[in-house]
Amino acid sequence: MSKGIIKRDIKKLKENHAAAWEDTLVVEEPLEIKIAYGKGTQRKQKDLAVTMRTPGNDFDLAMGFLFTEGIILSAKDVLQMRYLAEQLDEASQENIVLVDLQTDINFDFEQLNRHFYTSSSCGICGKASIDMVQTTCHYLLPKGEPRISADLLFSLPQKLNQEQTLFAQTGGIHAAALFDTNGNLQLLREDVGRHNALDKLIGAALKQDQIPLSNAIILVSGRAGFELVQKSVMAGVPILAAVGAASSLAVELAEEHGMTLVGFLREQKGNIYCGAERILTT
Amino acid sequence: MSKGIIKRDIKKLKENHAAAWEDTLVVEEPLEIKIAYGKGTQRKQKDLAVTMRTPGNDFDLAMGFLFTEGIILSAKDVLQMRYLAEQLDEASQENIVLVDLQTDINFDFEQLNRHFYTSSSCGICGKASIDMVQTTCHYLLPKGEPRISADLLFSLPQKLNQEQTLFAQTGGIHAAALFDTNGNLQLLREDVGRHNALDKLIGAALKQDQIPLSNAIILVSGRAGFELVQKSVMAGVPILAAVGAASSLAVELAEEHGMTLVGFLREQKGNIYCGAERILTT
Repeated sequence: MSKGIIKRDIKKLKENHAAAWEDTLVVEEPLEIKIAYGKGTQRKQKDLAVTMRTPGNDFDLAMGFLFTEGIILSAKDVLQMRYLAEQLDEASQENIVLVDLQTDINFDFEQLNRHFYTSSSCGICGKASIDMVQTTCHYLLPKGEPRISADLLFSLPQKLNQEQTLFAQTGGIHAAALFDTNGNLQLLREDVGRHNALDKLIGAALKQDQIPLSNAIILVSGRAGFELVQKSVMAGVPILAAVGAASSLAVELAEEHGMTLVGFLREQKGNIYCGAERILTT
Repeated sequence: MSKGIIKRDIKKLKENHAAAWEDTLVVEEPLEIKIAYGKGTQRKQKDLAVTMRTPGNDFDLAMGFLFTEGIILSAKDVLQMRYLAEQLDEASQENIVLVDLQTDINFDFEQLNRHFYTSSSCGICGKASIDMVQTTCHYLLPKGEPRISADLLFSLPQKLNQEQTLFAQTGGIHAAALFDTNGNLQLLREDVGRHNALDKLIGAALKQDQIPLSNAIILVSGRAGFELVQKSVMAGVPILAAVGAASSLAVELAEEHGMTLVGFLREQKGNIYCGAERILTT
């Protein structure tokens, strides 16, 4: 099996019935790119970036990232690449790539720090990413609560579509919607970035003093990656549903927090990755 | 009209015919979030993050981001938020938000720097983002070349689908594919992140000494945002096609570099946002 995918037991929801199913998930794991640069005794090592990626072709990824960021101009600018496996457990030994740059590469590496994007999803391995959420999260999800019917769950995507005004006009924007446990739409936010749509939604809920959202459902229009589960966990949301697929690390994080995670929610169907006890079936 | 969308004249491609059309694009612009924190004379200002977002509900976005990153715990932790418009032109006056945090917020702000994600897409306004690509880009795209038929363009998505092995198994992964001007698939890379799939593809091409890709077409499985156009520009690709929509800033950047950008490429149809001269129609 490719290391880009992983098997997992899930519940496949169809109409009012949930059946055991072995699903195939795309693997999502952080990759940290480090560079070594400079001459002789001046040679330094620097953490360049962390990105959530699917393992496989990691050296291509590091090479392409350095090139598209304007740090290298050709493959010859790289002396060698290798995994820095020393401090990591076996599962994560390919999550740090060290790129040895030619000594004559001239780039303002200090200036690189100026533009940065912080994210809780940054960690050198999936486990560390999950642990980091654990330490910053302030809310425990209500155990086994709330419970909603499969029918109510199935009704949500259409309600989101009806209100997604920017999508209707452009066909190119993500949405995040907040529903109460009767299936009433409470809040909706749209953005070109999935994580931004969810941050807008959670920010609005925070202003309305609704956090933790312990009696609510969030539906997102796209896929459910680690970052979307992380944000939902922070907001104390017990049920997260997505119209698209979930990644491996998203499911791990949801399970760790006892969250209900549903993917491929469309046409009276869905995949329950974990927390199936909150979805009532016959 | 909402500031989240913008009208633009494009060519609508259907079978072998291209017709003028006024399209509606989702707006993509950088938002920089700055924070002011600390007490009295110790009070400091810090650049926290830059994210490419759709304008609208920016204060919700900043609030949600601070909360989901664990920096604030409630809306009361924010004294006020305002746009820092001083140094910007009119179009970009709402692209920097300053969040004034309560003086007693206790967070290790220095530690925030440790995990960062650098990106050329970072800039305080769309114009600055476009200029930044201009200065780091080393290749001019061949003017009006290569030319390919609409039929050849339409044949590409199916070829990508056939080779997208991880998608077939998971339904949750993006792909970027490189084609020659006869429509032959040269390279394909998959990843949970669109930008990673493209970086993997460009990294592989770089290793094969194929950059600049001045006689090639890149097809991406999802939407074409600023970042994907930026990476393609860096690699010298004259034609970028996407199965999904393009954003406003993606189109601006493609046009600035004379790139051909096609979106919604499916079922013998497509939107040519710019560079229509490279697509031969009847």
